[in-house]
Amino acid sequence: MEEPSGTHTKRKVVAVVGGGLVGSLNACYFAQRGFNVEVFETREDIRQAKIVRGRSINLALSHRGRQALKHVGMEEKIVSQGIPMHARMIHSLSGKQSPIPYGKKGQVNPSFSCLVYMLTSCLHTNYNTHIEADLIVGCDGAFSAIRKQFLRRSRFNYSQTYIPHGYMELTMPPIDGEFAMKPNYLHIWPRNTFMMIALPNLDKTFTCTLFMPFEEFEKITSGDEVMEFFQKYFPDTIPLIGPDALRRDYFRLPAQAMVSVKCSPYHIGDKCVLMGDAAHAVVPFYGQGMNAGFEDCIVFDEILNQFDEDLSAALPEYTRVRVPDDHAIADLAMYNYIEMRAHVNSKWFLFRKHVDNILHLLMPKTIIPLYTMVTFTRTRYHKAVERWHWQDKVKHKCFLSLSLSLSVLQAIYFRDDSSTLSTFQVL
Amino acid sequence: MEEPSGTHTKRKVVAVVGGGLVGSLNACYFAQRGFNVEVFETREDIRQAKIVRGRSINLALSHRGRQALKHVGMEEKIVSQGIPMHARMIHSLSGKQSPIPYGKKGQVNPSFSCLVYMLTSCLHTNYNTHIEADLIVGCDGAFSAIRKQFLRRSRFNYSQTYIPHGYMELTMPPIDGEFAMKPNYLHIWPRNTFMMIALPNLDKTFTCTLFMPFEEFEKITSGDEVMEFFQKYFPDTIPLIGPDALRRDYFRLPAQAMVSVKCSPYHIGDKCVLMGDAAHAVVPFYGQGMNAGFEDCIVFDEILNQFDEDLSAALPEYTRVRVPDDHAIADLAMYNYIEMRAHVNSKWFLFRKHVDNILHLLMPKTIIPLYTMVTFTRTRYHKAVERWHWQDKVKHKCFLSLSLSLSVLQAIYFRDDSSTLSTFQVL
Repeated sequence: MEEPSGTHTKRKVVAVVGGGLVGSLNACYFAQRGFNVEVFETREDIRQAKIVRGRSINLALSHRGRQALKHVGMEEKIVSQGIPMHARMIHSLSGKQSPIPYGKKGQVNPSFSCLVYMLTSCLHTNYNTHIEADLIVGCDGAFSAIRKQFLRRSRFNYSQTYIPHGYMELTMPPIDGEFAMKPNYLHIWPRNTFMMIALPNLDKTFTCTLFMPFEEFEKITSGDEVMEFFQKYFPDTIPLIGPDALRRDYFRLPAQAMVSVKCSPYHIGDKCVLMGDAAHAVVPFYGQGMNAGFEDCIVFDEILNQFDEDLSAALPEYTRVRVPDDHAIADLAMYNYIEMRAHVNSKWFLFRKHVDNILHLLMPKTIIPLYTMVTFTRTRYHKAVERWHWQDKVKHKCFLSLSLSLSVLQAIYFRDDSSTLSTFQVL
Repeated sequence: MEEPSGTHTKRKVVAVVGGGLVGSLNACYFAQRGFNVEVFETREDIRQAKIVRGRSINLALSHRGRQALKHVGMEEKIVSQGIPMHARMIHSLSGKQSPIPYGKKGQVNPSFSCLVYMLTSCLHTNYNTHIEADLIVGCDGAFSAIRKQFLRRSRFNYSQTYIPHGYMELTMPPIDGEFAMKPNYLHIWPRNTFMMIALPNLDKTFTCTLFMPFEEFEKITSGDEVMEFFQKYFPDTIPLIGPDALRRDYFRLPAQAMVSVKCSPYHIGDKCVLMGDAAHAVVPFYGQGMNAGFEDCIVFDEILNQFDEDLSAALPEYTRVRVPDDHAIADLAMYNYIEMRAHVNSKWFLFRKHVDNILHLLMPKTIIPLYTMVTFTRTRYHKAVERWHWQDKVKHKCFLSLSLSLSVLQAIYFRDDSSTLSTFQVL
């Protein structure tokens, strides 16, 4: 059963475990390289299954993800199926809506609710064959079975951290065949310890996701309590979701847990490698989970080129290069988990965002907002974090110098007025 | 098969999984309480097995461990079998030995190499019975099988971190029937990125433990390279261990890995609880692994008293109370991993130790060295860490005030001597 070989050696066989987003994209990469690809998936074929709502946070595709799709010629096909989001839209308690742009004009993040469906449309999935593979690629998600095998080995570093918040999805139906809110926005209702977001779908619905500590979810046990809660915190959404749907859908599924997973190394010898959520599940508060997973594929592809497809060199290099970046995005997502809830509605947060954007306009090569580096560039995640800390120091020093110069000027100006001078000294 | 019940309800049945240090002590606690205790252990009975050297770091029993033993009337019996250690003994490269005391006079840490043997001497161990238990206590060590069941559940936080160092044990035999070095010390050879320690055993041997990065262990592949390495870094130990034994024993077992494990919660409902290394394996650089595990037993015992043996209340309370303390000692051990290697032989470290000890003598209730709180008191670990940070702030402020006062005094004194003043301003 030998494959006919050309001038080169026998085609490599790759078993991709997991037919989700990263598994599907990875299969395209390996196929493009001429490898023999088999995708293994335990769940039924999503193309035959009816879509299960309520257990998948909507996805925003940003620069890294688009680059990864572009590399296998799928960017346009996919992006045309998404809804572009130009900005965030903050909903205050009174119902007032204020947009906050993502970055410069033209920088958008398309939103998707059924990207897996689109990606898998190009695959043949393997449900029960046994094969012998040169490489096993574990893309089987946050609760990866492949990663469990890594855990049985010594010197495998691993952490899983559940956050105290759970999430629940609710659907906001179209009104008279049109979106119930402005569609080209990521709608956010920040309410300190909890928050709701809404992303648009192609069928003119919005998927609303409520993030809240589990203990708060558990306090609400009846339809009346649901109404009371929404009346208090999200009154503008009640007519849009519909009071009856709200009373019913809140109890359809329990709140879902969110986990942050980090591990290292990502490989075993020259045989097995982890990618996507299997290697680094992140909490969904930077919108980078899928994008980081897609970037894994392009990074691994670049390394395979670099080492001429020598797996014994490429796999350790992938661990060396990718672990610091994936750990950085996991940390950033956790950092944003706190920031999004506590600060998005604070004047100080908005002020800082404005200052950052103004500094970026004045010195576009020196001061680049972190969000811009993460979302609209392929700057390595850990380099983006380093640069962010460096920029903060520069900003801090500028601010100090400025204050000092002002104080000195004032001190000189008021040199003979000792009472004024002492006032400045106290400040 | 109902047990005859007295005025109380039926005796509770406890399955203790793991017949090591913490499992054995726990069994004593539950037995003392009148529970029906069964201990499960997969390894053969240590009382029949021949002692396996090379895979167990020697153990120092400090205050917490002693208190836990005392509570079940075992302190004297155990302590009399240990060798008291009054101080650390630092070996310099030239072979010079300098003692550093642990704390005040009379504060000693006995050393043990076969404490499990002593503890298990009071147990009946269960190897193959199936029983129905009211409570399962997982004391099955750093690679706990009970904890694996916790990992299958949602919202269980878990991390395992392997450090880059491995360890290897070597035996230093007696010379003319006597200890080859002063016995009542913890001998330390600090050598920056690696280090060796030696603890005395009752049979007049020392167990030497070499801590070194795995990559350094792997560089040494022949007897000659072993000799060259010891000649360079531990020349005074070669005649004591014996050159032939050294050449041979270095290759007897590969270097062993060290893992730090944290998790939360420690319990499932009112049915199962983790203690000892199963709950919190720590790296061995604070000498608190066993002591923390023994303290687990006494803390759980106190909580059982507090809640009148109501397991549904006691188990969540145990998690609430004990997790922050166990996480604190795991972090401290990791902190010491860096400090012991890098600073024990630095003048700055010794100076700080001296300052701390002097401050403690001057203000015994205000400034207590961290090591003293951890090793010679039952101050909750996380409170000790908080107090340590607070003390550091106080010391820092005192130091600043002192410097400032001195500067001001000097400025006044040298008021008219502008050249001297500018010198002070530059300093």
